[in-house]
Amino acid sequence: MLVDFSISPIGKDESLSRYVAQVYKLVEVSGLPHEYHAMGTNIEGDWDAVMGLIKECRDLLLREADRVSISIRIDDRKGVTDGLARKVRSAREKMG
Amino acid sequence: MLVDFSISPIGKDESLSRYVAQVYKLVEVSGLPHEYHAMGTNIEGDWDAVMGLIKECRDLLLREADRVSISIRIDDRKGVTDGLARKVRSAREKMG
Amino acid sequence: MLVDFSISPIGKDESLSRYVAQVYKLVEVSGLPHEYHAMGTNIEGDWDAVMGLIKECRDLLLREADRVSISIRIDDRKGVTDGLARKVRSAREKMG
Amino acid sequence: MLVDFSISPIGKDESLSRYVAQVYKLVEVSGLPHEYHAMGTNIEGDWDAVMGLIKECRDLLLREADRVSISIRIDDRKGVTDGLARKVRSAREKMG
Repeated sequence: MLVDFSISPIGKDESLSRYVAQVYKLVEVSGLPHEYHAMGTNIEGDWDAVMGLIKECRDLLLREADRVSISIRIDDRKGVTDGLARKVRSAREKMG
Repeated sequence: MLVDFSISPIGKDESLSRYVAQVYKLVEVSGLPHEYHAMGTNIEGDWDAVMGLIKECRDLLLREADRVSISIRIDDRKGVTDGLARKVRSAREKMG
Repeated sequence: MLVDFSISPIGKDESLSRYVAQVYKLVEVSGLPHEYHAMGTNIEGDWDAVMGLIKECRDLLLREADRVSISIRIDDRKGVTDGLARKVRSAREKMG
Repeated sequence: MLVDFSISPIGKDESLSRYVAQVYKLVEVSGLPHEYHAMGTNIEGDWDAVMGLIKECRDLLLREADRVSISIRIDDRKGVTDGLARKVRSAREKMG
């Protein structure tokens, strides 16, 4: 499945890049296929792997902040294993 | 933590209430504090309980559809255990 | 159309209820059908009315904070004008 | 402001790439800075320009489907005009 997630502390700095950097490090360590974009991080993997990673990110931020906000959007499609690369390509091909 | 989630099959009927009804049944069985609203379901509980429930809902819908879309928003605040009831009340009190 | 939105300042207090109260006031003034829930506010109306209201909420919060985060989910279905009340009821009826 | 949005018809095909292609075309025509990713499209611009574009995408899909689902996330930060390129770069630099 494909998952787009974004996580940030509430009540801390206005700049969030320090926290995003910590999330990126956990994403790298996970070894899961991923795509960073300006509004979140896309991950591809099965439910337990992806949700386990997001839980780790949340545990990490809760060590620095008392409140954390997380947004997750999931596109779960049977039989699709190359979704991260395929989705944008497939739409582009149909632009004609 | 407080979680708002919404789940729907892609490529099935335009009417989704049949699927929402199935989700409601799993929510009831979970025993977790919850609030149904027009755009999703709010659940209160710890990470594993809430995510376990959402995974069950997804497994259920994937038995009927080949593609499922899920949106999850989390507000995780240390020491808050009565968030579901408290949040709207707390804002209302400050309306003055 | 039905719209669930949530708005909060980044880099301010950990408690957000003061800001939510300000949003509630604008919602009341708009006169649009609405439903407050623990994770956001549901509004029913046409595009310009609802988006105009959310823009007002954002303008208000940007007077207090330098950074604002907004999440909006829209369910736009032709011919549905009583969505706010109907959606939960319709699913409940199908729970059997 | 930076906006991540995703739009899809409900009750149509399981494959959505045809619809995404139509959205991409409107994005190109808008001339707004953008970034396509596997789970949505990021746009940078002021409120009216970005929301006007999303409304056009919704009008387009409502000509083909009776129900449309839209997800929008906004990061509105005063004084930031190069957010699309800057956000990932800024976090990467802090990965150390």
